[in-house]
Amino acid sequence: MRKHTVTFPGGQRLTVAAGTTLKEIMNAAGINFDFPCGGRGRCGKCKVLITAGAGEPTAEDRKALSAEELAKGIRLACMTKVQSDLQVQFLSEKNIRHQILLSGLDRKASVEPHLIKRYVEVDKATVEDMRTDWQRIKDGLAAQGSDSKADTARVVVIRSIPDLLRSARHRITAVIYKNEILGLEQDNTTEKMLGIAFDIGTTTIAGYLMDLYTGKELAVTSTLNPQTQFGADVISRITHVNTHPNGLKDLHRAVTEAVNDLLGEAVKQAGVSRRDVYAAAVVGNTCMHHLFLGINPRDVALAPYVPVIAEPLVVDPWDVRLDMNPAGKIFVLPNIAGFVGADTVGVLLATELDKSEEVKLVVDIGTNGEMALGNKDRILACSTAAGPAFEGAQITCGMRGASGAIDHVHFTGDVNYSVIGNVEPLGICGSALLDTVAGLLETGLIDSRGRFKKPEDITHPAGRKLADRLITYNGSPAFLLAGEAGSSPIVVTQKDIRELKLAKGAIASGIRILIRNYGLKVEDVTEVLLAGAFGNYLNPHSACAIGLIPPELEGRIKMVGNAAGAGCKLALLSAGEYRRAAAVARNVEFVELGSDPAFINTFANSMLFPEAE
Amino acid sequence: MRKHTVTFPGGQRLTVAAGTTLKEIMNAAGINFDFPCGGRGRCGKCKVLITAGAGEPTAEDRKALSAEELAKGIRLACMTKVQSDLQVQFLSEKNIRHQILLSGLDRKASVEPHLIKRYVEVDKATVEDMRTDWQRIKDGLAAQGSDSKADTARVVVIRSIPDLLRSARHRITAVIYKNEILGLEQDNTTEKMLGIAFDIGTTTIAGYLMDLYTGKELAVTSTLNPQTQFGADVISRITHVNTHPNGLKDLHRAVTEAVNDLLGEAVKQAGVSRRDVYAAAVVGNTCMHHLFLGINPRDVALAPYVPVIAEPLVVDPWDVRLDMNPAGKIFVLPNIAGFVGADTVGVLLATELDKSEEVKLVVDIGTNGEMALGNKDRILACSTAAGPAFEGAQITCGMRGASGAIDHVHFTGDVNYSVIGNVEPLGICGSALLDTVAGLLETGLIDSRGRFKKPEDITHPAGRKLADRLITYNGSPAFLLAGEAGSSPIVVTQKDIRELKLAKGAIASGIRILIRNYGLKVEDVTEVLLAGAFGNYLNPHSACAIGLIPPELEGRIKMVGNAAGAGCKLALLSAGEYRRAAAVARNVEFVELGSDPAFINTFANSMLFPEAE
Repeated sequence: MRKHTVTFPGGQRLTVAAGTTLKEIMNAAGINFDFPCGGRGRCGKCKVLITAGAGEPTAEDRKALSAEELAKGIRLACMTKVQSDLQVQFLSEKNIRHQILLSGLDRKASVEPHLIKRYVEVDKATVEDMRTDWQRIKDGLAAQGSDSKADTARVVVIRSIPDLLRSARHRITAVIYKNEILGLEQDNTTEKMLGIAFDIGTTTIAGYLMDLYTGKELAVTSTLNPQTQFGADVISRITHVNTHPNGLKDLHRAVTEAVNDLLGEAVKQAGVSRRDVYAAAVVGNTCMHHLFLGINPRDVALAPYVPVIAEPLVVDPWDVRLDMNPAGKIFVLPNIAGFVGADTVGVLLATELDKSEEVKLVVDIGTNGEMALGNKDRILACSTAAGPAFEGAQITCGMRGASGAIDHVHFTGDVNYSVIGNVEPLGICGSALLDTVAGLLETGLIDSRGRFKKPEDITHPAGRKLADRLITYNGSPAFLLAGEAGSSPIVVTQKDIRELKLAKGAIASGIRILIRNYGLKVEDVTEVLLAGAFGNYLNPHSACAIGLIPPELEGRIKMVGNAAGAGCKLALLSAGEYRRAAAVARNVEFVELGSDPAFINTFANSMLFPEAE
Repeated sequence: MRKHTVTFPGGQRLTVAAGTTLKEIMNAAGINFDFPCGGRGRCGKCKVLITAGAGEPTAEDRKALSAEELAKGIRLACMTKVQSDLQVQFLSEKNIRHQILLSGLDRKASVEPHLIKRYVEVDKATVEDMRTDWQRIKDGLAAQGSDSKADTARVVVIRSIPDLLRSARHRITAVIYKNEILGLEQDNTTEKMLGIAFDIGTTTIAGYLMDLYTGKELAVTSTLNPQTQFGADVISRITHVNTHPNGLKDLHRAVTEAVNDLLGEAVKQAGVSRRDVYAAAVVGNTCMHHLFLGINPRDVALAPYVPVIAEPLVVDPWDVRLDMNPAGKIFVLPNIAGFVGADTVGVLLATELDKSEEVKLVVDIGTNGEMALGNKDRILACSTAAGPAFEGAQITCGMRGASGAIDHVHFTGDVNYSVIGNVEPLGICGSALLDTVAGLLETGLIDSRGRFKKPEDITHPAGRKLADRLITYNGSPAFLLAGEAGSSPIVVTQKDIRELKLAKGAIASGIRILIRNYGLKVEDVTEVLLAGAFGNYLNPHSACAIGLIPPELEGRIKMVGNAAGAGCKLALLSAGEYRRAAAVARNVEFVELGSDPAFINTFANSMLFPEAE
């Protein structure tokens, strides 16, 4: 038998028997090339450029390709039989199974759509072939390979068949999920396959519109969670549910409308249609998760803080009134516990703790702080109520990280700061509070319990230079950060330092208990991954200086951005990652801090600030 | 080890080791006793009467049973351990797996509900047991045995959990179908489990309300199919669909309202609630099947007469707006072809052709005649458009089989007849037309082509006595059946005989072609089963005399009543029978008469009447 060599991009080379098709070779070589019509020469989608060795075009080539394409050496891969040595180039990245790249994370994954679309030219019924319409559709799909076999559909899909076959002249596209046909569409729509990942935060909701074939991000939109009108935090929203007859409906409707608006904005940005969106993935804390699904989160706020459901849920767009393609599916990520939700699962998915050889610590700081510690063998997770100090709330001059907020403070001789938007400062946000308290500690203006020292007790030279910034504000000691002492200055008060102490104490004690329960010492943690907007914005040195993160780990801190959102995108783009999410959620051991006998002591100790060197 | 003997009703006797529970013994003995709580002594449902050898009641016995019951010797079977020889009686037939008995059919089947209900006392969440609500429900079910394992539910069911667990104080009943929890209910509702079988005929719809545990019929209701307002037959209804923008909706809504009304009437008759109805089964011809499901039946009326779908469909009550328990399912029987529908599958299920050793013929005569011939190895089926003559339509004095209709005619010397309701005759129905034409043939008043003989050509002595009943009616020859020749008499005209010739010719040719295609002779058919209202009412001798049924088979005819409805009840009561329906529908070979080369000739021959002896 004659043999020939086929060379693919990147130099991959295979020697094959003459007569083998490029489709067979690519399958054998593990090249994830897409053949929408199953390799029957029908759809014209599997074009490749043969730069050396192109033979005569086949009849299918001539039908599907222009004269210009044929002249260039473009052929259909499914129909090309090797008759000489070939050099093959790929034309469209659509055909190749793409890698997902996440900013801020050394994280790759293969795109593996949850749903598949297959174009079928359905046989016509004749006296010799009296199979039903439904049978002919199923047979047409099965002929394209085992991945497009389907044997069930809702009656609403069956109802669409007679008119569709007629108007589409038997050329249709099936949307398939597992063994079910979710929808049938006119003509070949296999190219339209978008999805959206929703990261539903207590405060902010973000939507990422993605191409489910290429993994590319097409649009990003975000909005304030409109549930804030019913309460700023999870507990006050649950109170609304408990105290208003339509409370659950109010909150469910608010988030439903918000995600629908985000979807509308995203498809507008990308110049596509809502109908092109076939999949959605959703993360959020357990309360947001329940409210998105219309499930009463009441018991999440009551000991023992148990969710109604933790398992991954695949729901229909209709179930949550999401205005996307009704033949799509929504993939809701699983929860771990009442206060360790699907958002943390997203973080774990993105940071791959479950694949790590080394033990790593992941911290996602918001109103609640969720922490996980572990590696491929074992992961522990916990949650602490950090309170709103990190978000600038309940701080004397606190504000969100918006224009006018002092976001970073440097104690270099004098006090320097930067302001978001480079405008006159209006207040300070969480990261600046951290910097300020770290500076006060390092210059010896406060002691390890956070109390302002009397001017006469300040011994640090840098501290002495700043002593005139110690003022009295509304009757209690404060540090003057900006402005004049008399006219609405920007200050950090004793009360603010106490708020920060509580917040950092909660996080720090969670971290210490996780490390202890794991049977490790602080130094054994090889990496600290900070997730979330605040985690991404804070100065790691300040975080260690105040003891939010154990100072021993300062050199091992890495910012990973919105890892919850990144994990949600992964679960949207890859069915395998979604399955992994389920496994991760099931295997993580939840540590309930409140019932840990060491918690009270650890918390009390963790509230202390490290002694300045 | 000590051994004891346990005697069950009917004398079944088992010797078992001391300490074995009655539950274990019954399982081993194949006694299909129901243990709703899985045999944990919780539900108190598995009462038995121990007439000899009853020991001390257990703690569970004391909790579940009254002092009087205990004194009688009543115990819970799941908790009773054998410590001496026992005599056991069953108290409630609810507990035993029942046999289904169908009137008119020597047909038995075991009740095997499609859905199961299980009562669970759900564990409460504690700090030590932080499983989610959903997990605790699943675990509670799984603990009751493998048949009640479930791992999925729609989000609407999940939403019901928090309030339900609270109001039901964790005592709930799950409705399970395969691996899915369809619904959760407060307290123990395991006793409520009804279903309804709908036989949707072109003219009449019948509903049979059944107890899904005992197989008992609780109510029967029927109504005229309100679709008749849009056309009397299948073809005119399809024309309505094709020619009116809302035609399909009109017809779908009409049948939906009718079955909802029937269900309402049935539950009222039985003194139960719509909510107690968890299952429905549906048969009908292919057009009725499609219209019930809201599927356009257009192509059923166009060559090659292919249904949109033939496979069995399990749909939700919501899909067809059937106002039963929303946590139920509707089991639609499969079709065979465009004109051999789910009703014929019901007939085959009831008559068990697929289990027969001998070759039998089943004929269901209505506006269409459906026929099937075969045995366990092979079944052929066909359909012919018999026209409405058998239903009395388009016959000069024809009427339905209602009060005032002559229903049977005897040519015994003179002509005698019976009238439905014993009133003055108003017209004749199909069975009387058959009798009259048979009589005319046997007395030699008409020839084998159905033409009235001239008085001088009548040679049969009985015929000569009736010669004065040969009159002229509206200018053509007729036979005077009742009344006076001058004043609105009841007659059978030459035209009526021609109508009957066409109708019987269609059926008879279908039968002959089936027999020929099967490679048999008429005499090889061991039994002729006549199904349907008309088939049940006609005189078998007359049917053979006119050649509707081959005269050779006269002694082998058996009436089987509404076998389509009986088959529907079987499929409702037994999941096994429903699976059998799918297999039967798949395996039947449909014979398309129009494309059979022998059809034209056979039809022409079949229109002739047999020569009188």
